[in-house]
Amino acid sequence: MTASDPTAFTSQLRNLRQTRRFSDRAVPDDVLNELLEVARWSGSSKNTQPWHFIVVTNSELRKQIAEAGPFAGFLESAPVVIVLVMAGSNPRSEPYDEGRVSERLMLAADAHGLGAGTGWFAPDDGGERRVKELLGVPDGMVIRSALGVGYPDATDPRPRGVSGGRKPLSEIVSRERYGG
Amino acid sequence: MTASDPTAFTSQLRNLRQTRRFSDRAVPDDVLNELLEVARWSGSSKNTQPWHFIVVTNSELRKQIAEAGPFAGFLESAPVVIVLVMAGSNPRSEPYDEGRVSERLMLAADAHGLGAGTGWFAPDDGGERRVKELLGVPDGMVIRSALGVGYPDATDPRPRGVSGGRKPLSEIVSRERYGG
Repeated sequence: MTASDPTAFTSQLRNLRQTRRFSDRAVPDDVLNELLEVARWSGSSKNTQPWHFIVVTNSELRKQIAEAGPFAGFLESAPVVIVLVMAGSNPRSEPYDEGRVSERLMLAADAHGLGAGTGWFAPDDGGERRVKELLGVPDGMVIRSALGVGYPDATDPRPRGVSGGRKPLSEIVSRERYGG
Repeated sequence: MTASDPTAFTSQLRNLRQTRRFSDRAVPDDVLNELLEVARWSGSSKNTQPWHFIVVTNSELRKQIAEAGPFAGFLESAPVVIVLVMAGSNPRSEPYDEGRVSERLMLAADAHGLGAGTGWFAPDDGGERRVKELLGVPDGMVIRSALGVGYPDATDPRPRGVSGGRKPLSEIVSRERYGG
């Protein structure tokens, strides 16, 4: 579907950054619902939709989830945590599909002035098992990541939109052949 | 970055569909460049940017790539094929990052009235090795997918934007606990 202003649209894509510090301001239900609809309509390998989203707002539960992963601590301060539970039936395509749907959720949050960031859990005893226990997720399913969503902390001194550099196109693009 | 019209933006996200039939119309250089800039600015685990993009337009080469994978045949008809070469240093986060950047490329193409679709190569002798040979990609790097990009074939009888159904939210979303 051609966008009404394609360049404004791609500019929105280019300017997405992860947010990991949040204010206390609540996420409105209608916005959260819109994010979940974006997730629902995500494409996936053979349209398997190999996902389930657990929306966690309980602060004690968020704290326990945040403690389960070495790269998940910031989730404690996110008013909404969306845990991505993957089906666990296709280890090749599911992480790719998980990345696709996560990117869309982050883009949708950003468009509404929210921020979002990815927290990670290491496999099995590295934290995944703990999160599955906390949330009653069946064996066989996979939890690799969760998104923290909320309004960015305006007092965060790090400016949004300029985090990290990127390699130049000349380094990451070839024509017809690697290095060409 | 709050979008000027957040709901129009998320509507654009929701309506993205894969395109696998293309017209012969060439992709303008400036649009292709904008797509590559969107890829360049994609987020990745620890900002590793674990990717390299090989842009293939040569028709004989596209044909050979299309023949390398059981789910890649449609790439022959795409005027531009973008092969995603991943660094191969983190098997846990790279497929997720590959999904993220692919989703953005598909969204950017769609915003410009182009279509895009994902072609897959099976590991090693299943096709990945052949594509690496064709493109001179070093051992150790990983090729899992390629995107075909072009203007959609207007004679394709399948309507865009209504392909496949999606599970209802009640089936894919829980609150606080799996199944809750």
